[in-house]
Amino acid sequence: MADGSQCSGREDGAGFPVACPMPLPGWDAVTLAHGAGGRAMHDLIDKVFLKAFGSPAPDAKHDGAIFQCGETTLAFTTDSYVVSPLFFPGGDIGSLAVYGTVNDLAMCGAKPLYLSAGFILEEGLSTEVLQRVVQSMADAAHRAGVSIVTGDTKVVDKGKGDKLYVNTAGIGIVQTRDAVSPQSVRTGDAILLSGDIGRHGIAVMAARAGLQFERPLVSDLAPLADLVLELVRAGIEIHCMRDLTRGGLATALNEIAAGTHSGIKVCEADIPVREEVRGACELLGFDPLYVACEGRFIAFVPPTRAAHALDILRANPLGSEAAQIGSVTDEPLPVVSLETVLGVSRALDMLTGEQLPRIC
Amino acid sequence: MADGSQCSGREDGAGFPVACPMPLPGWDAVTLAHGAGGRAMHDLIDKVFLKAFGSPAPDAKHDGAIFQCGETTLAFTTDSYVVSPLFFPGGDIGSLAVYGTVNDLAMCGAKPLYLSAGFILEEGLSTEVLQRVVQSMADAAHRAGVSIVTGDTKVVDKGKGDKLYVNTAGIGIVQTRDAVSPQSVRTGDAILLSGDIGRHGIAVMAARAGLQFERPLVSDLAPLADLVLELVRAGIEIHCMRDLTRGGLATALNEIAAGTHSGIKVCEADIPVREEVRGACELLGFDPLYVACEGRFIAFVPPTRAAHALDILRANPLGSEAAQIGSVTDEPLPVVSLETVLGVSRALDMLTGEQLPRIC
Repeated sequence: MADGSQCSGREDGAGFPVACPMPLPGWDAVTLAHGAGGRAMHDLIDKVFLKAFGSPAPDAKHDGAIFQCGETTLAFTTDSYVVSPLFFPGGDIGSLAVYGTVNDLAMCGAKPLYLSAGFILEEGLSTEVLQRVVQSMADAAHRAGVSIVTGDTKVVDKGKGDKLYVNTAGIGIVQTRDAVSPQSVRTGDAILLSGDIGRHGIAVMAARAGLQFERPLVSDLAPLADLVLELVRAGIEIHCMRDLTRGGLATALNEIAAGTHSGIKVCEADIPVREEVRGACELLGFDPLYVACEGRFIAFVPPTRAAHALDILRANPLGSEAAQIGSVTDEPLPVVSLETVLGVSRALDMLTGEQLPRIC
Repeated sequence: MADGSQCSGREDGAGFPVACPMPLPGWDAVTLAHGAGGRAMHDLIDKVFLKAFGSPAPDAKHDGAIFQCGETTLAFTTDSYVVSPLFFPGGDIGSLAVYGTVNDLAMCGAKPLYLSAGFILEEGLSTEVLQRVVQSMADAAHRAGVSIVTGDTKVVDKGKGDKLYVNTAGIGIVQTRDAVSPQSVRTGDAILLSGDIGRHGIAVMAARAGLQFERPLVSDLAPLADLVLELVRAGIEIHCMRDLTRGGLATALNEIAAGTHSGIKVCEADIPVREEVRGACELLGFDPLYVACEGRFIAFVPPTRAAHALDILRANPLGSEAAQIGSVTDEPLPVVSLETVLGVSRALDMLTGEQLPRIC
């Protein structure tokens, strides 16, 4: 697993492996940008994690790992949740920790089955808050049809945490016949988006800052597995999927484009953004294309199946605003290009720096 | 899943489940004792987590969950690691996060295969420290024969963490034919301990306090799966196992006793404790029976197989000091009783309060 070209591991006298020095990755301390889902995070993953752990599959940056268990193909994924505040319009850290991991399994084409839950509690956390979060996780698991089967609790001293962090890992059974991965994307594929973007990030940010909107803005947080499995059951050949979390739509498109040898073209006018999200973004200097969702995904499907897939998505309340937002082209770079509402094309890059820290 | 007698869940107008009020569990804030592995932690698990999540199996407090995948039985477990300091004699948070989860799978009778790794990094963490920890995880995974196949990174603001927390979840294939669980324990079973106790807790505590011992004291941290699987391959029928982490030997014995209808009798003179651990405990007012290990376990086996099992354990460097420390009796309460070196019997209770916070 370790990158043998850099370091094959050596042992000290007691037979214990010793960490060996590696070249520094060009920055000497972790910043909030390293957790924001954009370029800095990918740099961290490439230069620290993948370098040491190796990559069991070419698409290691996929939402989960896939492995075989007899005749069954399983998906395995994990996420830690550090959202601040713990409660926001439309959800809380508990429902987020369940749906976030359920959605990562769904993006592997898997039916989610079992979750683990690891809690890091800060000394002094009120029992009432803990109970609300735990009950919310139980309710979310019930809604998503998964069981929380194993767990762990650690407590850290006051001032060494922020009330409550949760990690969930999940296991699901892959339902798709063909690999759902950037490598499966083909020129001409239609890119479908399951609904309006940016509500989760703005809802959390507003809750954190105590902002009030004229029309209440609620996170899009939702479990996506049923929606995805409806596509699978209808025989829609899904080449790739990604849920739009940190870094938003623009970053997800760039992640997938990086794993293909094709360009991606999307049309701004076709991307649903609610007026209140657009307004908040203008006010705060954000671009909705980079703001996180927690209940939206993109799917790459053969162009001949796009209309049928959209019908299926739109028949489900979680996909009622689904739209085709673009397609895969064989055009040269820039890899992701956006046709703006003004009719001009511009390159759409991955998120750089931090936009909204701790939104998940 | 939710405890139907208390609350069957209700829905608000939007169809989202709403957390419903539950009676408070008798304390109103989380304390360090709730993470120490003893009575307070069990209270938290019973009154908050199991109440909300339900329990898919009677032995929900086992080290992992067991489920069927076709013909294969899988084990699934998770732990978060918050040890302070990050580096201690004999290991660091990275090797601990790999071996800790590997050992939990081993305690299910499983061969560990895949791990996930979730990182919560504090803004400002030095890259060099992160790289050392990650390389240590990679080396530990290599030594334990597991692959780290999926992961996640979050960054929290400075002052909202303590450099670095890690969560690992693990999947393994169960190798034992019969259930390894407290329910399988039988009267007369021999209780085997794989080696000397308490070194991990004392090594971490000493590193934290900057204490120096005359003879250097190194954590017992080690991966236990090979040792356990040697017993399994030899056909030793293991009724129950538990690794001795938070709360130490005394707490593990109490956890298992609570799941059986028998008493447990152990003999203090047969429990290996190194002189330096005994000395440090006397000095600091600890009882070695409650101090954590990270490379030791107890196994309950039929008395007729105890000698063979001990031979196998002692042939492995990680089990060279293995000993039979007691047996399962049909005597009435107290559930766990200790025959002291002075020849008198006393009840051995679960850890109450906190002894050594953040040792794993």
